[in-house]
Amino acid sequence: MKASRFFIATLKEAPTDAEIVSHQLMVRAGMIRRVAGGIYSYLPIGLRSIRKVETIVREEMNRAGALELLMPAVQPAELWQESGRWVQYGPELLRIKDRHERDFVVGPTHEEVVTDIARREIKSYRQLPVNFYQVQTKFRDEIRPRFGVMRGREFIMKDAYSFDRDQASLAESYKKMFDAYVRVFSRIGLEFRAVAADNGSIGGSGSHEFHVIAETGEDAIAYCPASDYAANVEAAEALPLNATRAAPAEEMKKTATPGKAKCEAVAELLNIPLQRTIKSIILATENEGAEPTIWLLMLRGDHSLNDVKTGKLPGLSGYRFATEAEIVDTFGTPPGYLGPINTKKPIKVIADSTVANMSDFVVGANEVDYHITGVNWGRDLPEPIVADIRNVLAGDPSPDGKGPLEICRGIEVGHVFQLGTKYSDAMNATFLDENGKPAPMLMGCYGIGITRVLGAAIEQNFDAKGIIWPESIAPFEVVLCPMGYDRSDAVREQADKLYAALQAAGIDVILDDRGERPGVMFADWELIGVPHRLVIGDRGLKEGKLEYQARRDTEATLLPVEDAANVVIEKVRAALASGVTR
Amino acid sequence: MKASRFFIATLKEAPTDAEIVSHQLMVRAGMIRRVAGGIYSYLPIGLRSIRKVETIVREEMNRAGALELLMPAVQPAELWQESGRWVQYGPELLRIKDRHERDFVVGPTHEEVVTDIARREIKSYRQLPVNFYQVQTKFRDEIRPRFGVMRGREFIMKDAYSFDRDQASLAESYKKMFDAYVRVFSRIGLEFRAVAADNGSIGGSGSHEFHVIAETGEDAIAYCPASDYAANVEAAEALPLNATRAAPAEEMKKTATPGKAKCEAVAELLNIPLQRTIKSIILATENEGAEPTIWLLMLRGDHSLNDVKTGKLPGLSGYRFATEAEIVDTFGTPPGYLGPINTKKPIKVIADSTVANMSDFVVGANEVDYHITGVNWGRDLPEPIVADIRNVLAGDPSPDGKGPLEICRGIEVGHVFQLGTKYSDAMNATFLDENGKPAPMLMGCYGIGITRVLGAAIEQNFDAKGIIWPESIAPFEVVLCPMGYDRSDAVREQADKLYAALQAAGIDVILDDRGERPGVMFADWELIGVPHRLVIGDRGLKEGKLEYQARRDTEATLLPVEDAANVVIEKVRAALASGVTR
Repeated sequence: MKASRFFIATLKEAPTDAEIVSHQLMVRAGMIRRVAGGIYSYLPIGLRSIRKVETIVREEMNRAGALELLMPAVQPAELWQESGRWVQYGPELLRIKDRHERDFVVGPTHEEVVTDIARREIKSYRQLPVNFYQVQTKFRDEIRPRFGVMRGREFIMKDAYSFDRDQASLAESYKKMFDAYVRVFSRIGLEFRAVAADNGSIGGSGSHEFHVIAETGEDAIAYCPASDYAANVEAAEALPLNATRAAPAEEMKKTATPGKAKCEAVAELLNIPLQRTIKSIILATENEGAEPTIWLLMLRGDHSLNDVKTGKLPGLSGYRFATEAEIVDTFGTPPGYLGPINTKKPIKVIADSTVANMSDFVVGANEVDYHITGVNWGRDLPEPIVADIRNVLAGDPSPDGKGPLEICRGIEVGHVFQLGTKYSDAMNATFLDENGKPAPMLMGCYGIGITRVLGAAIEQNFDAKGIIWPESIAPFEVVLCPMGYDRSDAVREQADKLYAALQAAGIDVILDDRGERPGVMFADWELIGVPHRLVIGDRGLKEGKLEYQARRDTEATLLPVEDAANVVIEKVRAALASGVTR
Repeated sequence: MKASRFFIATLKEAPTDAEIVSHQLMVRAGMIRRVAGGIYSYLPIGLRSIRKVETIVREEMNRAGALELLMPAVQPAELWQESGRWVQYGPELLRIKDRHERDFVVGPTHEEVVTDIARREIKSYRQLPVNFYQVQTKFRDEIRPRFGVMRGREFIMKDAYSFDRDQASLAESYKKMFDAYVRVFSRIGLEFRAVAADNGSIGGSGSHEFHVIAETGEDAIAYCPASDYAANVEAAEALPLNATRAAPAEEMKKTATPGKAKCEAVAELLNIPLQRTIKSIILATENEGAEPTIWLLMLRGDHSLNDVKTGKLPGLSGYRFATEAEIVDTFGTPPGYLGPINTKKPIKVIADSTVANMSDFVVGANEVDYHITGVNWGRDLPEPIVADIRNVLAGDPSPDGKGPLEICRGIEVGHVFQLGTKYSDAMNATFLDENGKPAPMLMGCYGIGITRVLGAAIEQNFDAKGIIWPESIAPFEVVLCPMGYDRSDAVREQADKLYAALQAAGIDVILDDRGERPGVMFADWELIGVPHRLVIGDRGLKEGKLEYQARRDTEATLLPVEDAANVVIEKVRAALASGVTR
């Protein structure tokens, strides 16, 4: 491609609504333009990268035996009513009416449509397993679309749906997709982690998220560098930090802690480690026709409550924080100095598994400006219900026993999920098994946010000058910058020769023949993020040299003219191959 | 691809709602499945053909210098309000509201979005010309979707939009697209015609439709086999069939024609050629605050009114047929025996250009059961307004003077159109010209109905057994049918060897390893329309032979085993190349 015949629309400034770097850089590089909130046009340079992501995804889906089809964006409400999601799905589901006032949705996902296809087309176990995928435009009516393509309303997604005869077969289909996703993100050349969405164990889990690691990621991920353990912090299991409980060494004692409601302040005042204090969190659950149940959850002073785990505990589904009135009513004192001892009314106490093994700890006294120190289980208060209710911290032991955890931040770009019979039950998608009996199909669903991958790749790979694309999804792999293409015959001839040589080798090359000043040229291609650059100038040519610079290099290297094409070809091929074999 | 790992969903019967052959065959071949009225899922075998059409279209768009981008399906109402189409576009425009009750449309076309991009990104004449295209899913809320993908609601379209600095440059951009379309349909291997949408002259026209020729086409096309003249019958110019007017030879005479209101009946009764009679058509146009104007249009008895041409005549824009009351009021008699002589009130008379040169003709007498014969212009009634108001017939002279016209039927699959400044004026899309003055961009738009091409290809190429695909867009180019793949080692080995050889040559081959009976196999692949078939059986192998049959062949040919792969490879390559060079 020659730049004069291409459309380059770089901008000096990012729009004011672009809060994160990938959004800023995609607009500045001329990849996207806003059409409405969360709705973008992809300009030619942006679409080139999208197509490269799509191609890699398609190749790996096909290799895994999935079959591409294409389902419609506009879907009849009847299917969503059958599955129950017409009611369950919130306002993110864009519900519309056609000219005959019939209800439709603009599809945010395609479980209903694909299940409808399966139940009509698949009659026998002999037709199973099958896995259908599509690369398709979806719409999700986000209340507050933001972050460019990271949380848009209209976006491109690869979604796959597997149908199996039994759980063992589903597990195989799931594994194939899991492996395909690993290949996809490896080939793209991103640092990523497969994260168990529920308990972190890769073997047994029915759901994994694929996260691109980036400091700006919205999800916190706990992982063990010494193993493949990784889980969303929301879901990561927190082991007790003390294997056994020490015997009591102190007497229980009411202690004045005036103005020191927070654990940190109490620890400082009493000159004890924060790890000796207890944080009390008061929750309430409703009881039909009776008073709400009040719960006191006890965490070590340096720990924080994990609301996902908490919500899964018996009796705590749908919990809420207790009101101030309920707290006064139950504890006889307003929030600030609460604890499990001397409550006004009975409560249910849950201790985090670490707290359950503590001794001589400090709790609030249920009296303003007072705590109780030297508290011990069994002696001063009854044994509690014990549960894992906290978020893991860096340094905590990995649940697989392979060493300490670390925490990083990630951007979810893919998700694999074992649906089981949720949709096949609701929509009566059955097949005849080997005994001629109808059985529900077991389903899995597998998504990759194609447009989101671009944003995530940028969040992981950028600098002050702009984007740094991996070769696999760069809009161009190599840019040729001739200094004076229109003035110097020698420069033009050499540039054209290189251009032809690179094209012949199948390299995706752009020749900047726009006649811009070197500063403008370099700034444009650094902003756009082309990974390899060759500069052709009269001065260098006199010495038989060209300037080569990789996008991450701080300085240019001189290459002999005759070697330049081959050097660059080898670099591009090596980069693409490193992804393939990763 | 091996059939056992693919998804084949052929049906014996077509659904009852499938009225035309392409709809029936696409459903029966397992290419499409209905999701809602005019909304389809494309099953894997259908998507394969779609992708091949898309690839050819992309290659030719890129070759013509157009740049691919991707605009959103969901578009904000504001842009449509700016262009005026929010009001002008009928109920086919699917208007929707998002969760914030803001108005959007699901785009049936993208002039507004692309013009918005152009006005924001293009500042200078130096950035022109530019041509943006996309392959994208559109929605048109047809009141009565039917005919499968031929008149669906959701469909895939390639739409391109050119921007130029002046009319000469627009004409060049238009010519490039015109030529690209010729290459696209030639490469696909369809019989087609580029049809001038207005006047039929390829040079000067600002709009052409590309029609695939098929007996089932909904458009009638007039073309001259001896030249490149082709026009939609709606628009084709009808020359007068008589160069000069003969002198009167009869006296004007009122003649009884009891019960003979129609021209055919009058001609029969009077024993004269139908070409001597005149058909009178009464139209009305509204006049604000005054009586409507009544028009009498005179056509030769064997001719029919062309409503498109009529609507373009001075004073006749927005015409309607006169009511019976208006006719009685104007002519003094009800419809049936109307004519231009002895009207009760004054009327405007327009004679078709052929009628204007007639003499001694027959008109209605404005009296039930009577006509007037021997009528002559000038002598019996004043010279009329003369205009081309009729549809051309086969045998009429071509307007380019190159011989008689023929009429065929076609299916519109593409359209190229010079928009001029319609959208750039409405949306203020200007650029600075060489003198630094703002000027509106000149636009062209260019569409190909990707999914419609499939339907049209089938309407042109089918037989009683099913579809007959051209190689270019066949879901598979070659099918291997082994007789007893699971039973005979010799058959399996030979089939696998052929499969490997064809794949290595880049042939899109499917090996039917499903273990179906020969009859089922053959019926499936004939229905699906794979252009080349090789049958591998023990009996043939013993003599070193395979059976080859092209989809259009009535009988199989025996090929030596060792030649089979090369013969088929050459056939496929020759077919694809014949399209390329056409």
